[in-house]
Amino acid sequence: MYFEEYKVGDKFRSSGVTFTESGIIDFAIKYDPQPFHIDVEEAAKSQYKGLIASGFQTLALAFRMYIQEGFIKQGMGSPGMDELRWLKPVRPGDTLHIESEVLGTKASSSRNDRGYVDIFCSWVNQRDEVVMTVRLTQIIRRRPPK
Amino acid sequence: MYFEEYKVGDKFRSSGVTFTESGIIDFAIKYDPQPFHIDVEEAAKSQYKGLIASGFQTLALAFRMYIQEGFIKQGMGSPGMDELRWLKPVRPGDTLHIESEVLGTKASSSRNDRGYVDIFCSWVNQRDEVVMTVRLTQIIRRRPPK
Repeated sequence: MYFEEYKVGDKFRSSGVTFTESGIIDFAIKYDPQPFHIDVEEAAKSQYKGLIASGFQTLALAFRMYIQEGFIKQGMGSPGMDELRWLKPVRPGDTLHIESEVLGTKASSSRNDRGYVDIFCSWVNQRDEVVMTVRLTQIIRRRPPK
Repeated sequence: MYFEEYKVGDKFRSSGVTFTESGIIDFAIKYDPQPFHIDVEEAAKSQYKGLIASGFQTLALAFRMYIQEGFIKQGMGSPGMDELRWLKPVRPGDTLHIESEVLGTKASSSRNDRGYVDIFCSWVNQRDEVVMTVRLTQIIRRRPPK
């Protein structure tokens, strides 16, 4: 998908991915070793009443699904994200889908090989609860001239 | 550090962490497998002129450093982040420090065991270039009554 193919209002739903206890602990022991992400005993005593995934793991898995499924195949990086919200915990056994909607598109005024696509992303679990949202801007390659 | 110990204007600088080629590829192959994060040949041909770290890896490593160094030892999670900006690429061999400043603090009005701390985080490399910034809100436990 080149820049020209993204239209405001377009929606995309990824395949699902199931979070596991070992996947949650493996990520968090390296990147986010807070007790409620790595220690099932402490997590049970915490306000979360059990182990929950690092929000950074939840975030990053969206990109894995996007790239695996070709949603940002012509991606050239990102300048940033806004309004990231962690709304509900993600627990072992939860299966998340990423739902995305194109909010806006803008061709680059300085470089004719790319454009910017603003995307609203929601992470939805198997109970149709939205667990996380963010607005992100993705740089996408324009279709090369023939 | 309990909630009461965070004061507006307080600054914190973490120890450094060096990004390696294998660390960058290991993270990205799982979470962000774009060519410029996992394939040195394609990365060399890209606009980045070489392999760069996933911005999600850069983000998550801040938390590793925070927790390792006790900056958010009494952390109870986070409702979200705003204005995340990836400003410069992070490459193998780059060493990043996290510099943080407390922007604001607010005791929870509904739960007397916690408060909210707003933190501005900058990731700074060995050339003193700011490569990433974000504003994040952290929930911090209040000091228990004696």
